[in-house]
Formats: sequence, structure tokens, C-alpha cells
Amino acid sequence: MASSTPKLAFAGLGAMGYGMATHLLKSGYAVTGFDVYQPALDRFLTESPSASAGRTPKEAAQNVEFFICMVANSLQATPLLFDDEKGAVKGLKKDATIILCSTVAPAYIDEIQQRLTEMGREDIKLIDAPVSGGAARAAAGTLSIFASGSKPDLENAQSVLECMSGKLYEIPGGLGGGSKAKLIHQIFAGVHIAMASEAMGLAARAGLDTREVFERVRGSEGSSWMFENRVPHMLEKGKGGYSAMTIIAKDVGIITQTARAHAIPLPLLSTAEQLYLSALTNGWGAEDDCELVRLYLPPEHPDL
Amino acid sequence: MASSTPKLAFAGLGAMGYGMATHLLKSGYAVTGFDVYQPALDRFLTESPSASAGRTPKEAAQNVEFFICMVANSLQATPLLFDDEKGAVKGLKKDATIILCSTVAPAYIDEIQQRLTEMGREDIKLIDAPVSGGAARAAAGTLSIFASGSKPDLENAQSVLECMSGKLYEIPGGLGGGSKAKLIHQIFAGVHIAMASEAMGLAARAGLDTREVFERVRGSEGSSWMFENRVPHMLEKGKGGYSAMTIIAKDVGIITQTARAHAIPLPLLSTAEQLYLSALTNGWGAEDDCELVRLYLPPEHPDL
Repeated sequence: MASSTPKLAFAGLGAMGYGMATHLLKSGYAVTGFDVYQPALDRFLTESPSASAGRTPKEAAQNVEFFICMVANSLQATPLLFDDEKGAVKGLKKDATIILCSTVAPAYIDEIQQRLTEMGREDIKLIDAPVSGGAARAAAGTLSIFASGSKPDLENAQSVLECMSGKLYEIPGGLGGGSKAKLIHQIFAGVHIAMASEAMGLAARAGLDTREVFERVRGSEGSSWMFENRVPHMLEKGKGGYSAMTIIAKDVGIITQTARAHAIPLPLLSTAEQLYLSALTNGWGAEDDCELVRLYLPPEHPDL
Repeated sequence: MASSTPKLAFAGLGAMGYGMATHLLKSGYAVTGFDVYQPALDRFLTESPSASAGRTPKEAAQNVEFFICMVANSLQATPLLFDDEKGAVKGLKKDATIILCSTVAPAYIDEIQQRLTEMGREDIKLIDAPVSGGAARAAAGTLSIFASGSKPDLENAQSVLECMSGKLYEIPGGLGGGSKAKLIHQIFAGVHIAMASEAMGLAARAGLDTREVFERVRGSEGSSWMFENRVPHMLEKGKGGYSAMTIIAKDVGIITQTARAHAIPLPLLSTAEQLYLSALTNGWGAEDDCELVRLYLPPEHPDL
């Protein structure tokens, strides 16, 4: 890459973020990493000579053109960006860009803009760019990205967004559109994973051969992308590794909360949310979201 | 076809049954039709010189090898088959076969068998063969059929079942397996149609371009077969013609009732059932099931 390649900071080196950040390194970007979990940061530094680390978000943000944020939620993003002493915004140079890849409520994008204004940092560009696709596609740079922002800001960030994505959707209508599109996307994920669990649980309880049911439903009028993706993991215990129960529970909660604020009913998604909360109550938060199927299986038959 | 082609009776000439029965005629079978709605029967007679009509199910059943039943539900099937004076069983010759294509509870298949035994008609063969695919595929002879019964009975009926189907699934485990498989199939249909309605309703209320949302979701991780099939009908008012709200409401009710009898929870499908019942309450029973989306649209914006 040319020497004019922009410098990047990447905050949030979890399952998704780690793959995204290392893919950016492999693609020739110099990336300064930040994570509150030191071992993730240490491992990141071993990936490439162009990897560096910041001790604080503010330090990581020094001299970069793009600050990419891939933390789990807005509760983590707010101090990361806005802490009075250590926040990234205090470190960002003039006209730098924040790319927020976390899935957050559209209203939170407004809140970031407002805070930037209150801090006198209207110069900072903001891109709302939630992603989808899982850890493997994150590491391969083939995520789906739902990006929104002003047209010049999107053009300015395009090469970075393209590097991380297989499908880059630029959502019209300005900032917040990306988050809205991601929420529509997640309403399907939230219900379809719960649906696959409910149907496969019923099949098991009805005494049907669950592998045969899977084969018959996939590709039929009953199928969904999530069904074909998750059910093999239900059938093969411990195959796991897609996405944690906490993540889908969090995303679904953002959607029901957003819809409630606009008095929009979401009966199926609300039911799915209660199921994910039941799974969290059972202590399954760190497990694969397809473990939801265990809600339907009696203790003496814990497998499909 | 050879002169040994079996003679058929076909009861229930509604949207699905009419197409199935006329396709059997076109395929060279002699078919005696029956329907309580005389105009459907009159129209059927005009389709082919091999079409005839019975004034009662008993009359239609005379001298046929196969009596195919495609009425809406078990409430219609019971008098059709078992009425003391006019029921089909009274007319069926020795060793004839009843092919029940209606979607019914697996327990109803047991009930039919028991009644045949009580009447001393154990000679009558029974095939449980619910179908899926809609009126167009019914008329084309390309339905999906979930067939169960004893192995010799299935072999005996195979050419008739193959004539009506594009995909013929023989479900192992004896009678009732076809109905169980159909119920698993319909749990997806019931939830996915409601899901497509909920998501497209949310998209409309969030001010997104619903056509663009449809294009982005189809083929993505959010997609389902039902989403791709039904949403175009939501977007294009009055295109209709898939399947009536009453049908999906009936099928979903059979599943929740069957699961309840076995203490199996179906939280998503139960929620979907309430939505279909709300649609029936609104007077939308005869409309396309994708009209469910109107539950989410305010009166001043009745379209997506």
C-alpha cells in the first residue's frame, strides 16, 4: 500500500473485533489496538510489526485518521469515547473519523453527535457502520457492513470499510440509517434462531429423527438462512463458535426498546427476547446462541 | 394410460383440491368429484369427459380404488367419511384406499382408524398424506406430499401420490407420520409469515424504503423461504392468491393444540397464533395470509 495509507486505531479486540483488526493489519494498515482486557492486546501486538497498542483509548487515538470502535454495546462505548481523562475523543486530531461498528440503538448515534457538539468537536467525522457475519468472516474481511453518514464522510472512509467487508451497504438518509438497517436485520436473526430452536425441540419431543427433519426442512418452504446455519450446531454438540447468547440477547433488547419508544408492536421478537433472557437466567450467556434449543429439552434428554 | 388405471373419487374441490383433482383428470385418471358447493362440482364436470360427480360422498365412493379427501379440516372430514347415510365409507368397495390429504392433527388419524374398526371396515386402507405448496402447484401436480401408512398400502397408492406431487416424502414409522411432518413444516410457515409481517411493518414504521429492505434481506442472513415468497405480495396490494388466513390459522391451531396435549411449549408459534386470531377478528379470514402485515400499519397508512 502507498505511504499515504491512513493510520487506524481499533478499540474492542473481542471475537469479532480481533478478526477485523488483524485483517486490517494483514491488508497493510498500521493499526493501534486498544482493549480493556490486556491479554487480547498482548496477543494483538504479536500479529504484525505494524501493530501497536495504546494504554488508553486517548493514547490509541493519537495521530490516527480513523478510530474504529467494536465494543459490545453503548455502555462500553461511552467511556471509551468520552471519558474526561482517557477517552478517545480527547486524543483524536482535527477532522479524524470515528467508525462505530458496534450494534447500538439508532438513538445512541444521535447521542454521540450531541456529545461531540457539546465538546466543541464538530470537526470529528462520524460513521455509523454496524456489521454482521460472525468471527470467521470478520477475520476474512468479508463482513456485511451497514454504513451511514454524510456522503463526503462515507467517501473518505470507503477504503477502510471496503477492507473489512464482503458486502458494503451504504444506507441512504444520513447517520443512524446503518443502525436502523442492522436492527431490521437482527429482528430476523433473533426470531429465526429462536424459531429453529422451538421447531427442532418439537421435532425431538415428537420422537422424529431430528437429522432427517433438518435435511427435509432445509431448502424447503420452511427454511431460513439461520435455520440452515444454526441447526447443524444444535445437532453436533460443542461445535459452537458462532455468536454468544449475550450478543443476540443484547441486540434483541435494543430493538424492542427502540420499537417501544415509537409504540411499534413486535410480538414475535418480544417473545424471542423472553426466551433469550430465560437462557441468560439459566447461566448460558457465554454459550452459543443455538444452545437456546435446550429450553425445549427435558433434563433426562439434554440432546437433540 | 392402460385400462387398469385405478378409478378415483376426489372430495373437496376448493382452491387446492380443484387443482389436484383436475390434474389427476389431465393425467388420464377417471375421477368422480364431490363437493358440498354445487358450482365447484358443476365446473369440475366441464373439465374432462372422464370427470363425473357424486351427489353424496357415498355415491362418489362407489367402485373406486382410491377416495382422496382434501376438505379443510377434520370437522368437514368426519361427516364426509362417516355419515351413517351419505358417508364415503358406506360406499367404498372392499380393500379400497382412503388418501387423506387434509392437514389434521396426528390424533385424528388414530380416530379414523378406530372408527373404521368399529364399523368392521378394517379392509379399507388408509394413507395419511398432507400436502404443501399452494394452488398453483396443486394444479401442476408438483405439490410436496408427506405420506405415511403401511408399506404395502403406500406402494399400492404410489402412482396416484406421485401424480399429485413434485416431491413425495414417505415418512417412516407408520400412519400419522405424514401429519407430524406436516405440522413441523407448518410451524415454520406460521412463524415465518408472521415474522415477515412484523419486520416489514417495523421497516415501514421506521420510515425505511420497504422495497429496498426487501431486496437487502432476501438472500441475506435474514432471509427465509416464506419471506421471499410472501413479501412481494405485501408490497403489491391485491396480487394475492397464495393461501387464506383461515388456513394458516387452522394449521397453527392444530399444532399448538397437539403440543399442549404433550406439554410441549411453543412460545413463538403461540404468539403467531394470537396474531392470526386477531386477523380473523378483524374480518380478514378470506384474505391472503400476508395481509397480516396490516396489523402493524396505522389506519392512515394502510399500505407498506
